[in-house]
Amino acid sequence: MSSLDALFFPKSIAVIGASNRPFTIGHRILTNLKRYGFAGSITPVNPKGGEILGMPVAPSILEVEGEVDLVHVIVRNTLVAQTLRDCVTKGVKVAIINTSGFKELGPEGARQERELVEIARAGGLRLFGPNCQGVMNSDPRAKLYANFTFATMSPGHISIVAQGGGVAEVINNYFGMNGVGQRMYASNGNACDISVPEIIEYYGQDEQTRVIVLHAESFADPREFLERVRPVAARKPVLALKSGTTAEGARAASSHTGGLVEQDTISDVLFDKCGVLRFASLSELCQTAQAFASQPVPRGNGVGMVTNAGSPAIIVTDEVVKGGLQVPRLSPQVADPLREKLQAIASVANPIDMMATAAEEEFTAALQALDADPGIDAMVVCFMTPFFVDTLGIAKAVEKVAAGTDKTLLAVGMTNPEEKVEWRETLKRVRQAGVPVYYFPEAAARVLINMDRFRRLRDRPPTGVVEKVVTAPGTAKIIEQATTDSQGFLAPADAAALLAGYGLPLVPERRVESWAEARAAAAELGYPVVLKASAPGLVHKSEAGAVAVGLENEGRLKQAFDDMQSRLAGQEGLAFLLQKHVEQGVEVIVGGAPARDLGPMVMFGLGGIHVEVLRDVVFKLAPLGRAEAESMLDALQGSAILAGVRGQPPVDREKLVDILLRVSCLLSDHPEISELDLNPVLAAPAGRPTLVVDYRVKLERA
Amino acid sequence: MSSLDALFFPKSIAVIGASNRPFTIGHRILTNLKRYGFAGSITPVNPKGGEILGMPVAPSILEVEGEVDLVHVIVRNTLVAQTLRDCVTKGVKVAIINTSGFKELGPEGARQERELVEIARAGGLRLFGPNCQGVMNSDPRAKLYANFTFATMSPGHISIVAQGGGVAEVINNYFGMNGVGQRMYASNGNACDISVPEIIEYYGQDEQTRVIVLHAESFADPREFLERVRPVAARKPVLALKSGTTAEGARAASSHTGGLVEQDTISDVLFDKCGVLRFASLSELCQTAQAFASQPVPRGNGVGMVTNAGSPAIIVTDEVVKGGLQVPRLSPQVADPLREKLQAIASVANPIDMMATAAEEEFTAALQALDADPGIDAMVVCFMTPFFVDTLGIAKAVEKVAAGTDKTLLAVGMTNPEEKVEWRETLKRVRQAGVPVYYFPEAAARVLINMDRFRRLRDRPPTGVVEKVVTAPGTAKIIEQATTDSQGFLAPADAAALLAGYGLPLVPERRVESWAEARAAAAELGYPVVLKASAPGLVHKSEAGAVAVGLENEGRLKQAFDDMQSRLAGQEGLAFLLQKHVEQGVEVIVGGAPARDLGPMVMFGLGGIHVEVLRDVVFKLAPLGRAEAESMLDALQGSAILAGVRGQPPVDREKLVDILLRVSCLLSDHPEISELDLNPVLAAPAGRPTLVVDYRVKLERA
Repeated sequence: MSSLDALFFPKSIAVIGASNRPFTIGHRILTNLKRYGFAGSITPVNPKGGEILGMPVAPSILEVEGEVDLVHVIVRNTLVAQTLRDCVTKGVKVAIINTSGFKELGPEGARQERELVEIARAGGLRLFGPNCQGVMNSDPRAKLYANFTFATMSPGHISIVAQGGGVAEVINNYFGMNGVGQRMYASNGNACDISVPEIIEYYGQDEQTRVIVLHAESFADPREFLERVRPVAARKPVLALKSGTTAEGARAASSHTGGLVEQDTISDVLFDKCGVLRFASLSELCQTAQAFASQPVPRGNGVGMVTNAGSPAIIVTDEVVKGGLQVPRLSPQVADPLREKLQAIASVANPIDMMATAAEEEFTAALQALDADPGIDAMVVCFMTPFFVDTLGIAKAVEKVAAGTDKTLLAVGMTNPEEKVEWRETLKRVRQAGVPVYYFPEAAARVLINMDRFRRLRDRPPTGVVEKVVTAPGTAKIIEQATTDSQGFLAPADAAALLAGYGLPLVPERRVESWAEARAAAAELGYPVVLKASAPGLVHKSEAGAVAVGLENEGRLKQAFDDMQSRLAGQEGLAFLLQKHVEQGVEVIVGGAPARDLGPMVMFGLGGIHVEVLRDVVFKLAPLGRAEAESMLDALQGSAILAGVRGQPPVDREKLVDILLRVSCLLSDHPEISELDLNPVLAAPAGRPTLVVDYRVKLERA
Repeated sequence: MSSLDALFFPKSIAVIGASNRPFTIGHRILTNLKRYGFAGSITPVNPKGGEILGMPVAPSILEVEGEVDLVHVIVRNTLVAQTLRDCVTKGVKVAIINTSGFKELGPEGARQERELVEIARAGGLRLFGPNCQGVMNSDPRAKLYANFTFATMSPGHISIVAQGGGVAEVINNYFGMNGVGQRMYASNGNACDISVPEIIEYYGQDEQTRVIVLHAESFADPREFLERVRPVAARKPVLALKSGTTAEGARAASSHTGGLVEQDTISDVLFDKCGVLRFASLSELCQTAQAFASQPVPRGNGVGMVTNAGSPAIIVTDEVVKGGLQVPRLSPQVADPLREKLQAIASVANPIDMMATAAEEEFTAALQALDADPGIDAMVVCFMTPFFVDTLGIAKAVEKVAAGTDKTLLAVGMTNPEEKVEWRETLKRVRQAGVPVYYFPEAAARVLINMDRFRRLRDRPPTGVVEKVVTAPGTAKIIEQATTDSQGFLAPADAAALLAGYGLPLVPERRVESWAEARAAAAELGYPVVLKASAPGLVHKSEAGAVAVGLENEGRLKQAFDDMQSRLAGQEGLAFLLQKHVEQGVEVIVGGAPARDLGPMVMFGLGGIHVEVLRDVVFKLAPLGRAEAESMLDALQGSAILAGVRGQPPVDREKLVDILLRVSCLLSDHPEISELDLNPVLAAPAGRPTLVVDYRVKLERA
């Protein structure tokens, strides 16, 4: 039994700070609890005593008769601590603290909030909030509306947890207005104790919850999020909107919640690792949740459409195709018999366009054809409500097919239900058959695209399987003894030793100080060679003339060496590096950086202008599994370049995956690395060496 | 006076094919005309005579008394031609042909449709349709509902023209359901005579139409569209959704309308040249039209927000910032006084976050502050309807500020109007103040982004100003006398002469056949040189070893020449080209291709993998103005590359613009060119030559 059972399935509730005045939260919560039909006992608590909404008022929580599972705390914020102490004495299990004036006000409020947590933890009491709305549960055994706002809620399968109370209300109201059932709801404000991930975990265990909707502004504990949410998202869809993704939004969110707002990249890698489906649009998120609540996840990406109006179905077609789904032609074995059941003028293609006069039999036949077609995984029925058609017949056709199919079925209902009772009834019956109805054609298309995203996330290899390709116990010592410059960058020789310790394929190179050393090293490496000068003050090496490539013989090398020495004579700490000249490959970049509390992220991108101008890079949380590393190669806009363009052979993918996995091990073993750059790595075709040409490693020393 | 006046402002209407049976179009149109209060005369026409809806029926259009401006034709399709002849005899001005069974059925239907047009043109009758819904006009002088579908329509400022009847209904219904007024409406199906561009032109002249909504599936006459729509879009927003943009969608559209469906690029260049605002989402289009109908176009891109719930305003912030707008901090001169008018806990930033308890005075003060702030061009007021607040006060604040401001003002009304009369009233009053109300926060943000797109389109230099940088009368002769290969490609020497005729900067080059010629040519050009072999059978020159670059002296050239000669000895028609070796520049591509009926398009892109893999190219219709050519340089994803990356200097923009303008002249002068490729062009920094390295020109011979 979870400690959150007392929150979502309480047997008895007390409202501490209950009031007789209608425009107070203490009154409103009592009204909501009664109005929604809470089956357990409700006790208003107020030192003034008396009666509220016909219920006798207890002067103190200590004087409430019997056990109390859940309390609302609505007293002034200076009184909350004492109230919680009383709750502990009483043996209350969970307290929802609606009262605000804590962490969101700054450091002093944060201190007071920590005090509440200490009181609760010491006394075995769980806290929800403070500065929060509350919870809801439509389960008939619970009938719980422990929340001070009120929006219509019918039983269903969508559970919501939202950091922003306003956004929570927008989601809640949307479902209420559209007759979409909900299961549970939690808006836990400052979340000082019971956390968002803990609630998601609870929803994950709740059988009636088929889809979870999350609104997040910050991650109090990203590691906890990862650990609790990943197993849930592997089983059921978790749909998330993260706001505060721009600097301006983050500034607003920060001033609003007092929470530390993450870089957007960190949300992305966290959601990706967990398998959470991220949305940029709240309406799209709500509409998608609606479909997951009553429809199966499509088995594949084939979409079929039936319509009594051509043009809207074309919009669906365009949109799903742009989203990567297929709109296959109908199989002859279903198309041919269907043709005989429709009017001659109908188009038995996909979309099946039946003209405005189509009635029940035609809709039934067309939908059954899609259901029977092996190329179709999801069906969309689009309909207007022409005045000359019995539109209830359309609803009957949908009901019939919906009852018998295991394919996904969505509707686009392009009618105004207020115009005619028959049309309202038509939409209602389609909805009651479990078929979500959208008004705009593109909305249904977007939902299918999102369902397909979920399918692919769910079916990918689990992200928890880590590929430990290399152990390098000796490298701890390299780091410990390494020299770093004032910014924390490892001396090149130390960096090289560290990377070599993880088996990363560095270009053969030698550090040299004199012409004699350079000459000997070049003879050893073999011509052609590359000569690079380095000095702490040298930033743009190429522009400074500190790089000479393709030196084919000793004469050329000498000339380059002398040139650099005279040109850079004034540079403090001048040093030279001699590298084997590498044949051209595809320039890629592999890197790493820490994601607060989540450990390191591995970065992969196409090099040069792709990373600098187009920002075509992908990040994933380490440690990586092999499939994750592979997916990074395909996640770039310019991925086709790796497969070979302009007559080039494809690069050696296995080798790049191996490098990513080695970097993943390196970063995971050494969390003190604050920046790692292998840039460029020249990716060669299979059979030729893929090599790291330049690199740097920065430490965050404690 | 326009000939469409009789369509949108008829004084008298006859319905030919009127019926007493309710589920017929002939009955429905009469019902709609009466129900909407048409002020002129209505005459049902049916050979059976009698009475319909209390109106006496004329047996024939010839026997209707008085003048008839407009008729509906609903007779069987075989009778339409004779009916039109009668209409001509009667002197009818416009006929709406609702009857279907023409072009949409194939060639025979198309032939019959052409016959109708001939009858009408000969008799001075204009045709609307066939296979169409009809028109509407909410003007109190017209009160015209000449359409067989019915959706609520209140007077307003949005005029609609839609090719797809279904999509037209979706748009129409959306406005009806959301209480958004409309001005005129036209769904003209096959559009055999009165065309979509003609209707847009009419809307353009109608003072009460502030915004035009267009749905298009194909362009019957793109040239007509360009000529009629461009002047309209320069004055008022034309919002368009083009469907059939994917191959699958086009297939469906084609089977649906029988129209020739354009490549999506052609829609893009056409809309761009006209200044039409293109949408991918129908809901976003409708929501944006709603704002244009009652709100001014923002003067700049600064957005300010006021809210009584923090989290939804953060969503607006994120979205507008991602869309390129600014959310500036408030100016101190408005922020400081505002702080004293709000609760201490309120955040006087942007968004102004006032907490849920904020009432009328606070909303007024905050909105007035935004109105006074010079950095703010558009304001968004976001509100929940907390039960403890007099929400009508919020509406009053909005009314007050809306009446006095010339800035754009939108609302996000996050409430369910069905829950409480007060909330319904609140939304209603905000709407009546001319302030569009959206439910989801991101919807208001998207609308502002779209209004900003319009502002930038409207304020760009007019696209009709053409920059004729070069005339090359002699080139007609070059083309006339040119040699082409079997595919139509000009012989290299002819292509070079043509390009040189337009002053395009070709790399200095010589065609040579023997070593002696090569040697002499190299001496003349100066080393280093590039040697290229060509032959009709040689496609991938680099892979075939037919290109040698950076040949620094005669010895190297000789070696390369001999190598190629022996390696390619078997090639039929082997020829050699010697070019001056060009220092590296940014590789770009300039090209051209015809857009059906619209003349040529000029293409510009970054070369190599940018064009091949990332499809980072832009097309514009020729002839180009200078500003248009400039805008092409900035339209690429990778435009920053032209400005200089990795320490490179910026390329010579003026020179690239000059090349684009010369290509525009060349393509406009020679419409017989079906393909032009200058690839690569090496764009150099100012002061160094930008040169065309390779090129080909293909002709479409008649």
